[in-house]
Order: sequence, then C-alpha cells, then structure tokens
Amino acid sequence: MANSKYEYVKNFEQSDKLLPNTWIVIRIDGRGFHKLSDKYGFEKPNDRRALDLMNSAAQAVMKDIPDLIIAYGVSDEFSFVFHRNCSLFERRSSKLVSTIVSTFTAHYTYKWTSYFPDTPLEPNFLPTFDGRAVQYPSIKNLRDYMSWRQVDCHINNLYNTTFWSMVLKGGMRNQDAEQELKGTVSSDKNEILFSRYGVNYNNEPEIFKKGSVLFRDYELEQVKSTSSTKVTDDGEWEDTKLSRTQLDKQQKLRRKADVATAHVDIIKDEFWEQRPWLLSNIPGKLPNSKQSHET
Amino acid sequence: MANSKYEYVKNFEQSDKLLPNTWIVIRIDGRGFHKLSDKYGFEKPNDRRALDLMNSAAQAVMKDIPDLIIAYGVSDEFSFVFHRNCSLFERRSSKLVSTIVSTFTAHYTYKWTSYFPDTPLEPNFLPTFDGRAVQYPSIKNLRDYMSWRQVDCHINNLYNTTFWSMVLKGGMRNQDAEQELKGTVSSDKNEILFSRYGVNYNNEPEIFKKGSVLFRDYELEQVKSTSSTKVTDDGEWEDTKLSRTQLDKQQKLRRKADVATAHVDIIKDEFWEQRPWLLSNIPGKLPNSKQSHET
Amino acid sequence: MANSKYEYVKNFEQSDKLLPNTWIVIRIDGRGFHKLSDKYGFEKPNDRRALDLMNSAAQAVMKDIPDLIIAYGVSDEFSFVFHRNCSLFERRSSKLVSTIVSTFTAHYTYKWTSYFPDTPLEPNFLPTFDGRAVQYPSIKNLRDYMSWRQVDCHINNLYNTTFWSMVLKGGMRNQDAEQELKGTVSSDKNEILFSRYGVNYNNEPEIFKKGSVLFRDYELEQVKSTSSTKVTDDGEWEDTKLSRTQLDKQQKLRRKADVATAHVDIIKDEFWEQRPWLLSNIPGKLPNSKQSHET
Amino acid sequence: MANSKYEYVKNFEQSDKLLPNTWIVIRIDGRGFHKLSDKYGFEKPNDRRALDLMNSAAQAVMKDIPDLIIAYGVSDEFSFVFHRNCSLFERRSSKLVSTIVSTFTAHYTYKWTSYFPDTPLEPNFLPTFDGRAVQYPSIKNLRDYMSWRQVDCHINNLYNTTFWSMVLKGGMRNQDAEQELKGTVSSDKNEILFSRYGVNYNNEPEIFKKGSVLFRDYELEQVKSTSSTKVTDDGEWEDTKLSRTQLDKQQKLRRKADVATAHVDIIKDEFWEQRPWLLSNIPGKLPNSKQSHET
Repeated sequence: MANSKYEYVKNFEQSDKLLPNTWIVIRIDGRGFHKLSDKYGFEKPNDRRALDLMNSAAQAVMKDIPDLIIAYGVSDEFSFVFHRNCSLFERRSSKLVSTIVSTFTAHYTYKWTSYFPDTPLEPNFLPTFDGRAVQYPSIKNLRDYMSWRQVDCHINNLYNTTFWSMVLKGGMRNQDAEQELKGTVSSDKNEILFSRYGVNYNNEPEIFKKGSVLFRDYELEQVKSTSSTKVTDDGEWEDTKLSRTQLDKQQKLRRKADVATAHVDIIKDEFWEQRPWLLSNIPGKLPNSKQSHET
Repeated sequence: MANSKYEYVKNFEQSDKLLPNTWIVIRIDGRGFHKLSDKYGFEKPNDRRALDLMNSAAQAVMKDIPDLIIAYGVSDEFSFVFHRNCSLFERRSSKLVSTIVSTFTAHYTYKWTSYFPDTPLEPNFLPTFDGRAVQYPSIKNLRDYMSWRQVDCHINNLYNTTFWSMVLKGGMRNQDAEQELKGTVSSDKNEILFSRYGVNYNNEPEIFKKGSVLFRDYELEQVKSTSSTKVTDDGEWEDTKLSRTQLDKQQKLRRKADVATAHVDIIKDEFWEQRPWLLSNIPGKLPNSKQSHET
Repeated sequence: MANSKYEYVKNFEQSDKLLPNTWIVIRIDGRGFHKLSDKYGFEKPNDRRALDLMNSAAQAVMKDIPDLIIAYGVSDEFSFVFHRNCSLFERRSSKLVSTIVSTFTAHYTYKWTSYFPDTPLEPNFLPTFDGRAVQYPSIKNLRDYMSWRQVDCHINNLYNTTFWSMVLKGGMRNQDAEQELKGTVSSDKNEILFSRYGVNYNNEPEIFKKGSVLFRDYELEQVKSTSSTKVTDDGEWEDTKLSRTQLDKQQKLRRKADVATAHVDIIKDEFWEQRPWLLSNIPGKLPNSKQSHET
Repeated sequence: MANSKYEYVKNFEQSDKLLPNTWIVIRIDGRGFHKLSDKYGFEKPNDRRALDLMNSAAQAVMKDIPDLIIAYGVSDEFSFVFHRNCSLFERRSSKLVSTIVSTFTAHYTYKWTSYFPDTPLEPNFLPTFDGRAVQYPSIKNLRDYMSWRQVDCHINNLYNTTFWSMVLKGGMRNQDAEQELKGTVSSDKNEILFSRYGVNYNNEPEIFKKGSVLFRDYELEQVKSTSSTKVTDDGEWEDTKLSRTQLDKQQKLRRKADVATAHVDIIKDEFWEQRPWLLSNIPGKLPNSKQSHET
C-alpha cells in the first residue's frame, strides 16, 4: 500500500530557518513556576536547591549540544546561545527550540530528587518550560541581550530580597511591603535592608545577585591591548576556511571541555576578553590536567 | 538601576503567530530513539511498554491542555491537533510547540520507571523529543494528514513485523532480510509471515497495526444521514457566537471529560461522524456515570 | 573568474512561500493619493476618470495573470484574489505581491493620458502603489474579506458624498461639516443629503456606491437548489485530478475569457452562486459569440 | 452601518517585519526582459539606452526614498540597500519591496519615451519588475553581496561581449558560438575578442564592465589609516543617540544631496573608505557649490 495519496500534506510544512550569520538565543521559561514554587515549598526569595537544579539541567544541555557557546540563567529562566556560524539542524527554529526545551525538561525532571529529596514530584505538578528563539545580528546586540538579563536579575533580586525581608523578618503584610517599595530606587532598598534587617546587600551570595553563566572552560587568556587584531572591520573573526578534519577536531575539543558555572559580571568587557573563544567559536586550550590525559 | 539601556533587545523578537482558522498539528518525534531503544532493550519490532509509555505521556498532555482535540501516536512520534478556532498563546508557534514538547518530555521521564521498572534511566541517555507546527486550512487536509500517519504506521509495521520475524525467528542476517524484502508488496510480506512463521498479520495487536488515537470521550452519536446540516457551504460549523459563560462551560466540560485511547481506523468517515465534537469543537455529552457525579 | 567566493550570500534569501490551500488576497493601495488627487485636480468626492483608470489598470492585471479569479476595487485600492489551488511562483509572497504591484503601476502610468488628457503626469508626482499578501483559509473568510471591502466602500462613500455636498453645495467649512457629521448614522446622512441638497443617495452611480468587481466572464448559471452537490463536506470542490492537457485547456479558456467590470453586490450569495467558476476555479462556458470564433 | 461583522478578517494579516539591525537589500528584476528586449529592439549585448533608462529610474527611486544608501544595477536588475538602522515602514518586508518596485516601474514607464523615442511602449508589452527583500547581518555580508553582483556583471558581460562578437561580427550561428565558448575561461574569451575581432575588452565602456552604482554625493574623504576609530569592536558605528532635530537635519541633507551614478569598482575597500557615509549613515559634507546655496 503506497502512501502517495496522502503524502501531499507534507508540503504544508513551512520553512522556519533562521537567518544565517546571526547569534541565536533560545530562552526558556518555567511555566507557572509561581504556583509550582508554592507547591514544592521553594524558599523565598531564592531557593538555592531550585537554582542548582536549573544550573545542573543547563549543564547537561551544554554538554549534550556542543554547538552552544554560553548560557545564562536566572530564576526559572535560562538563555542558551548558538554562535552566529552555527548550522545545527540547518538553523530551523522549531527544531532548535524544541530540542533545547525537551533536553532541559528531561534533565530537570530526572535530577529533581537529587535536589529535592524530601518533596518528590507529583504527576499533576510536573515542572515544564516553554521556549522561543531570538536572533541578534551583531556582537553588540548579543552582549546587550546578556546584559539585559543580568541587569534584570539584579533589579529583581534586590527588590525580592528587600520585599521578603520586610515580610519574613519584618512581619509586614505583602501588600504593605509592596506599597512601601513602590517608587523606591536601589539606594532606598539597600538602606531598608541594612538599617532594618542588618543585611548588607553586597554580601548576598553572588549566585543570587549575578545569576549563573555557563560556558566551556579553557585556559584563561590575558587581555591583550590589541584584542582587535583578529577581527575584521566588521567585528567578525576572520572565517579562516577550515578543513573537515580541523572542524572535527574543534568539535571534539568542545565535547571534551568542562562546562564551568560562574556567578560573575558578564556586562563588562573583561569577561569576554578573557574568554575569546566565546565569540570566536575557536576552542581555547584545555587545562593542562585534561591535556595530559590525552598523551 | 533602570534597564532601559538594554531593553531595546526585546524588539528583536519576531512574531510567529500562526494563521487564524487553520488546524494546527504539533508533531513531536523522539530524538535518536534507534540508539535509545537499543540502550534500554526495547523489544523488536514493537515494545508494548514503550508504546504504553508514549500513550500515557500523551494522555497527560491532553489532560493538561484542554484546547487539544485529538492526538495520534505511532512508534516514537505523536501528533497533537488544535482546533482551527483555537487561540491558545495567541497561536504563537514556538510557544505551542515548546509547551507540548516540554509537557510530553516531563511526563515521559516521570513515568519511565512505571513502565520500565528494571531498566532505570541513565543521565547520559535521557529520552528527548523535538517538535514542529504545521497548519492545515481545511478539514480534508487535516484528515488526510491523520490518514497519512496511520497509513505510514501500517506500512512500517508490516515491514518491521516481517523483517524481525525473518531475523529473530528465521535466523537471517539483517542485510539478507533487508535484501529479500526489497521491492516486495504487502501481499508478499503477508505471505512470508504466514507461510514461513505461521503469523497471520491480521491477528497482530491493533495497537501495532493502527497506532493510538487519543480524544476526549463523550457519548457516541449515531451517524446521521444529514451530517452536513450543521455545516456551512464551506464545511465549517457555524460559529455561533457564544457568551463568555458558555465558553467557560465548554472548557469545563473538556477538562472534565476522560481522554480515551483507542486503536481504530481514523481514515474512514465513521470515526469522525460518530464523534462530531472533534471537528466542531463543541463538547458532547458526558457519559451518564460522569454526569451523575455533578448532581 | 568564478563567482563562488561570494555566492554564499544567496543563502540569506529566506523562503516566503504562502501556505498551500489558502485563498491569497493581494491588496494594493495608492501611496499618498490624497496629495496626488489635489495635485492633479481629482473631483470630489469621486473622480470618475480616476476610478475608470484604476479599473482599466486592474483589467490589464487580470488579463496578464490568468491565475487571478476576481478583483475588487474602491477608491485608490484594489484587491486581487488567487484561488486556493493556485501555484503561481510557488506561492512566494514577495514575488506575487511585487508582480501585481508592478504590472498595475505600469498600466496605470501608461494609460494615464487616456483618462487625464489635460493634466499630464509630472515626474515628481508619479502615482505609485504598495501591496501586501493576506491568506484566507476558508471560502467564508474570503467572502467576508470581500464583504468587508464593499461595506467599507459604502460607509466611506456615503460619508464623503454627504461631506462634500455640505462643503461644495452648502458652502460649509471643512471643519464645520466634519463636526456636524460626527456621530451621525446612515439615516442621518441620507436625510442631510435629501433635505438640504435634494440628493437621493440611492440614485448615486453604482460605481460609487458598490465599487468595482472584475472577473472572467463566462455564461451565467442558474442558481441550483443543490448547489452543494459538487462540494465536499469541507466546502471544497472535489479536486478531480486533471491531466496536463486538461489543465492547459482550462488555462487557455481563462486567457480567452473577457474580464467583466461590474458594480454589483458581492456580499449576498447570488453573485457567487451564479458564477460558480469563481470559487471552483473551473472555467465556465464562453459566450456563444466567442466560441464561434474558434470554429 | 457598522463594519464590525467583517472586520475580523484584518486579523489574518501576518507580521512580516524584518529583523532589526540587518542590512536590507531589495533586488528587483525585469520580468521577461529577454522577450521584451527583442520586442523593442534592444542592441546586443548591451543597449546603452536601456541601461541609462534603468539608471534614471533608479535615480528617481533614490531621490524619492532618502533612507536608501546605495543601489547597484546591471542588465535588467537593480539592488537597493537600506541601512541596518533604517526603520522605514517599520521594516515591513512587503511594504518595502512593493514601494520600491512600484516607484521604479512608474519612472521606468514614464521615462521610456525619452530613451526610446522611436519605439513607443505597447500596452501588451509593458516592462514590469518583480522584487524580493534579503537581509544581511554584517557589513562583510553586505559588501560580499555587492561584490557578488559586480563579479556577476563582469562574468556575464565578458561572455556576452564575446558571444555577440562571434555572432554579429563573426557570422557564427548562436549554437556554434555557444558550443565553442563552453568551458572557456576569461583569458580564452579575451583572446578570442582580441585576435579575431580586434576588441580589447579592457577598453569596453565601464558601464558595461562594472555596472552602475548610485549613491548620495558628498565630498570625498581621504582614506585615513585609522578609519576604524569610529567603529566599535563589532564594526558598527557608535550609535550616538541623536536628537529629533539632528535626525531631521540629517534627513534633510540626504534629500538635498545629489545622487551620483558611477561605474567603478565596489569590490575593493577604496570605494567604501572614501565614502564612509555609506556604511555609517551619517551624511557627509555637501560640495561647496551646494552649501553656498543655503546661505
């Protein structure tokens, strides 16, 4: 029995290939995590176990998909970045989004009991995520996106830290705390935290203040004054045409590299200058310890 | 600290709303399930536990998203259908795809141990799925899509049943079986099965031959000879404008309805005529047993 | 000299194929026609020469592109409709839009002097048009689109006829007329026209009240009570698979048919029932006079 | 009479906004110009009048749309480039394409008689154009696109010059000339031209060899060794936030500037370095003669 009579329906699939030479950000967000965090008793304003679980799932995604160059997570969201020269799945948007969302979800579900041993998942309250793809044509746009998420992390965390201090330590009602915080600026919140609750916001854990950045770990490079020597007028690294063998070797290095999880400033240049492989997509040197295993 | 300096990056998100008034099919496919089925020892050619797990995860998706009208699964793929008048997530493609993929993955992972108690998941071999959205403008196109999948199920299952009989029962090498089956038609394969291995293909389990169809379960309706009375010249059910209250009541009925799993022919008209709610999106009557619970 | 070094830039062209089996409407609009109509002294509220020129250009587009089934024009806009089974230019949106816009513009410019012999075009004030493509999945949606444009024609024409009577015959200032018309309903405007200026709106020219509809002209058919016999449950005409020869013959008939320009109601069923070829895309009979030329 | 019943059809218009911060190329192509050039007796291999008419129409488009930064034409095609920071028509693809196609067509039709006074247009053979939009994320991609077109111009012109010399001067049949040229490289064609027909290809008119590039004409700048001082690491000019007044002043300068038509190399850096306004979108200085008119 041939299937030709019905096969025409395949023609209704429309191309959703993303534009070549753009940075692709896949951002995933927890669905209904407000309710979920109540259900499973997440601590306020930040639950370290929940953040560690997010980071662990993101780690697995990074290991699973070596084409990813960096990921940034805060709260129940994570942004995964493909390099502008990435050609995974022919850059088909739905394929990229769904693969990352599914891989993240699988690991998040699988690892749950390691991070919440006392509150097992219930089938009607499984954590799920949605996702989207966004394209950024320039390095500046990409870095501004990353900065946007990290600034957002800071703004929300300062607010939440203050709010929950007022509620949990100060015994205020939610609405009253909300009302008092309306219109306040950063320094006001810092002052409330310090004078009322003895909290110095600067001493809060970096993972709360900065979020989490994941990237493949090669040897750090010294910032060179002539960092632009390798780039074209357009800010792109010269696409030296590499042989199949060279490309395979690079991919192997990426698979081999550890994925680091850091809680550092990604807004300033320093982070990017010390890790030129992030934007060049040329793997750096593996740390000595790792290399020695090869011999 | 305001975030306005970076917020412009939000403008790079492009609209991916699907066309109104089209049937939306979200098809998900297992990623690398060939390797995965080896890893976890799936039986050939069909592993009943794996199919039941797929159906169980799809059940959960149907319960979780009442906007879905029907789903059809075969092997490691599942197609979920939204009605043409669905407005969930403003019909944004990536949101619809990622939500279904994530929900399916979460339940598949969560339920794994119930179906494979002896082969626990390993973190480097988690099952994941990708997905895509396809739009169909007419009922005929949608039904042809469903028929396409079910015919595909039949073609593949007949082939696989024969192939694995030759290998497992007949002791043939894979290549030899493959070679002998090249160019054969259905009757040839039926003959091989029957004459060599005493297998009557017709007696194979329906779930293998027909795949699995999931739908909300209301009271079956008699096929009326004048089935077209409710539809317009264009085959659409008259969109009687419903009040907010009526719509809410319908959605409540959908949530309340059981989701049936059947292994039946969805190519012929009968299946659709007896369940007019599938294409009309007007919930049918709940079975008496369920209704009585309400009083 | 090979061009291979640069040819990669072709990969940046993204697919813009429209969904199969949808009705495609290309609507074009005059750019800055308010200013243009002042420049060339168009009569208010309707300039018959300008409308005739629009219709003449649209006629040429219909003759040039036999895949078009119908067009509807009002003021400085025209909507051209491709049948849902049209495959011209592989249904690429930009190709369809630009071809129609360019063909329309060429004929409008070329024919200008025939309709405005006393006011030749000036190079800094050439009439131009922009365009867009919209897809409609069902006959109902398409007919509602056409109805939308014709109702809009009526609303605007009644307003404009009243407004310009008040200004041109009544000597009112623009703002005063505008102010008085604010909040009025149709009957108010009819009353103003009749009582103050002796104008019975019903007697206004049909081209002003109804706009212009263009379609290929075959022999009218009697409305049959069983008009639905040819259509499927889904309102589609059975796509009888036609041979190449039959398709060529149909296309030949389309090219041969005259394009009629009418100013009639296209909202009611009658117009469509008498011209089943519009929605079926099966050419009707050529009038006897035309057929006889063939022998 | 309200139109609300039908107005829902507006929701079927889907967004086609191009990605921010990409270079937008609108390329238009003559439709059926092979046949058209026969009809109106274009000279082979290049008709100077036809090229001048193309350039004249493109000039008008450039004057009409000051957002365009450069255009490049060859044969019956023209590529128009919008700067990456352009926000015209909210970057809607169909609006940009159709406006350029229509404006070009209008001027081409209008100016025809100036360039072909002896062969007036005939209504069944009007010249028309189709168009498409392509996005380029980096300056390198954009310049490679421009280079691609100019290399194509060279390849085609060398071939056509040789082919038509063989046919028109050498009296060869088309097929024979085609056959002999199969597999030849540039030097072969140069040799044929020179040895058989005494044609030194280098002495052919620049407009044939290089095509035509149109751009706004400000005072040339000396190539500075430090041309990169103004650009960011990403090759983008710093987007100094400009006030409304400053932006208006820039737009005024663009409108005021003459549009130059040149037949020069646009592949090498020199062309772009001397005209930094092309890529920076910051208008240069108007020539003294023009400025003096202002005082």
